Amino acid sequence: MVIVGAGFGGLAAAWQLRNKPVEVTIVDRNNYHTFLPLLYEVATAGLEPGDVAYPIRAVFGKISNITFRLGTVTSVDWDNRIVRCEKGEPLAYDSVIVASGAAARFFGIPGAAQFSFPLYTLADARALRDHLLRELEEADNDPDPEASGLLTFVVVGGGPTGVEVSGALAEVLDSAVRHGGYKFNRSAVRIVLIDGLDRLLTSFKPSAAQYTERTLTSRGIDLKLGTMVSSIEADYVELSDGTRIATRTVVWAGGVSVEGTVASGLGLGAGPLGRLLVNPDLSIPGHVGAYAIGDAAAVPSGPGSDDPEALCAQLAQVAIQSGRHAAHQILRQLSGRPTEPFRYKDKGIMATIGRRAAVTQFPRGLLVKGTPGWLAWLGLHLVYLIGFRNKIVVLTNWTWRYLSWGSGPRPVIIGDVEDVVSHSGRG
Amino acid sequence: MVIVGAGFGGLAAAWQLRNKPVEVTIVDRNNYHTFLPLLYEVATAGLEPGDVAYPIRAVFGKISNITFRLGTVTSVDWDNRIVRCEKGEPLAYDSVIVASGAAARFFGIPGAAQFSFPLYTLADARALRDHLLRELEEADNDPDPEASGLLTFVVVGGGPTGVEVSGALAEVLDSAVRHGGYKFNRSAVRIVLIDGLDRLLTSFKPSAAQYTERTLTSRGIDLKLGTMVSSIEADYVELSDGTRIATRTVVWAGGVSVEGTVASGLGLGAGPLGRLLVNPDLSIPGHVGAYAIGDAAAVPSGPGSDDPEALCAQLAQVAIQSGRHAAHQILRQLSGRPTEPFRYKDKGIMATIGRRAAVTQFPRGLLVKGTPGWLAWLGLHLVYLIGFRNKIVVLTNWTWRYLSWGSGPRPVIIGDVEDVVSHSGRG
Repeated sequence: MVIVGAGFGGLAAAWQLRNKPVEVTIVDRNNYHTFLPLLYEVATAGLEPGDVAYPIRAVFGKISNITFRLGTVTSVDWDNRIVRCEKGEPLAYDSVIVASGAAARFFGIPGAAQFSFPLYTLADARALRDHLLRELEEADNDPDPEASGLLTFVVVGGGPTGVEVSGALAEVLDSAVRHGGYKFNRSAVRIVLIDGLDRLLTSFKPSAAQYTERTLTSRGIDLKLGTMVSSIEADYVELSDGTRIATRTVVWAGGVSVEGTVASGLGLGAGPLGRLLVNPDLSIPGHVGAYAIGDAAAVPSGPGSDDPEALCAQLAQVAIQSGRHAAHQILRQLSGRPTEPFRYKDKGIMATIGRRAAVTQFPRGLLVKGTPGWLAWLGLHLVYLIGFRNKIVVLTNWTWRYLSWGSGPRPVIIGDVEDVVSHSGRG
Repeated sequence: MVIVGAGFGGLAAAWQLRNKPVEVTIVDRNNYHTFLPLLYEVATAGLEPGDVAYPIRAVFGKISNITFRLGTVTSVDWDNRIVRCEKGEPLAYDSVIVASGAAARFFGIPGAAQFSFPLYTLADARALRDHLLRELEEADNDPDPEASGLLTFVVVGGGPTGVEVSGALAEVLDSAVRHGGYKFNRSAVRIVLIDGLDRLLTSFKPSAAQYTERTLTSRGIDLKLGTMVSSIEADYVELSDGTRIATRTVVWAGGVSVEGTVASGLGLGAGPLGRLLVNPDLSIPGHVGAYAIGDAAAVPSGPGSDDPEALCAQLAQVAIQSGRHAAHQILRQLSGRPTEPFRYKDKGIMATIGRRAAVTQFPRGLLVKGTPGWLAWLGLHLVYLIGFRNKIVVLTNWTWRYLSWGSGPRPVIIGDVEDVVSHSGRG
């Protein structure tokens, strides 16, 4: 069988199938799994790219029934049951799991795809980091960096990613200004968080949003809620109320879509935002033995939830649970048992605002804020961050940052020139 | 005053001038210092790029008389005492230290510049690492990877860098084959070390070379000594004896030259391999207040050595000592004192062959080999690796590798696609 994609969903599915009577090939365009929840830390220079990436061969190298193939899937021949990659032998399958994820969604806003920085891949995170650090260097040589927008950083999208990026930006810029020996002051630096709705974190309870808004404001972040972005250019953003903000940096945290990804080219039925339509057991209608999971699929909440037909949010937990479920169904089919419907088990949601501030909302509605929320967030991410070695390195980084706050420099380097040049749009 | 370059020499000079009555601007094309002696570890996926890079602003950010400028120096107007960069305001100076280093030297061998991988910058190291890992993935999908040269790795140059790369390659390839779940066996992998002279490590005593040759051979590395490379193509290397080796990977460790670097475009007198000619006090003839140091300069050994006119090797120690010396001479001139000749204090040389094997040759000729040599090498590099945080991370990595040898996977990831594409020649 073939698993398309080694994100949370694909890895979870493969892991369930280890040492089972099935030959698994897992295909990914990268040779590593990316721990997406911490990409914003790479983008704001808090972690190294290698800290949030884990080699797929290191997970499955010793498991004899699981093989890794580096490559990009170009098509699936559903009739003859063959997955084709851009190079290498085609992969015949009896079962297949489409776990190819999603990509940034720009709502057709002019300039957004060209000039903003999304945060959905390791390359995205590194491009943003390199850009940020270069902006600071440019600002240091600019007679009026405030006017030129070099020191204004705009974040679009008030969900967890937007909140996390804004909070982390405030911290890295505070630290850079304090320790970097730049000519400009912190007061010249501006961070603006924009969302079309009139509150942040709409998937959380209102009190979580209020706490988050207060905390971000107290950390010097301008909130522009109930405001849409109408266009983005190389040196400014235009808002729905007609104002222009001079900026060279727009971080795009405005949500994701399956359109334009591998999944959207497979000739399958798609629901909202291109998410692949699936049966209650996550199988793909009309294709026996084929499943779609995670961000790529319109995963239903399933029996037991308030609305069984409602779609799950595109979260790591949904990807992991749906990946495991699809793997189990394949094993059930192999042994002649009927498949079962997927049911999502809510484990809560969380967003961090920065050092010692986060919100964690547990399934029954219990909300933990502030330092306890942050510690919960920290612990959970360390537990989930695949790989013991990565845990140690990340912990070293964070401990160091925590201890050195206000006294030591934050070590950040700009990537090699090639990275920056190769990023389309800004350069 | 201006310091051109933030390598070992430039940093050492700037550090001597901290809090002294002189305004220093240090210019570098990167915002970080690269710890060159460990580049080969990045190239062979033992360390992350960030582990061997340290942000220059983190060194000098709090030191009020030292300013950092990100940029590439394009020229020096010696008459008007102005350093020009490719952008930004020109930098006026009263004193200047040229510490711009050297670059790979290809001896005019056809194809060497285009098809081989040098190891002199962080970008070089990352390009080689990404290439190596991609070769293994390609070999995994190749019906006959031995014949196609995908599993043959050629290292040119039998100095410390060539020895270190060869030894590290053997280790990373052993580990990859053992833990990666590839279809090919270790016996299909071949590493060849080539040098035109008939022994390795010519700057060391013969017994050090013999030990190194024995150890490399016992680790499965083919030594081709007394053999020159006559040309390099995309899929083979041709040797002076007419044999061709099918390979896609040639690591270039064949030495460095100042030609083609910033220093060679400054209109100054040059000696062997383009090294800038300097007076015994390291000042540049004919330009008062101008000094050249480190790899960029023809640094004389100075009084007290066997041959005071002999040039120092291009080593980190020479760069550090000559950088400090130039800084001191500038301070002496400021206070009206005469300058003094540079004298190099030999602190020994070392090369590591791999895990628990290294040679360290102390000044009086004492040679330490094997595990003690390796421990000496390890300790010294950790002490010199700038920055406490980097030390911790590097130590974590090494401890982990040491403990997990033979039992755990070696976590390695291929950089984002852009890096690989942007590397000229191979892609």
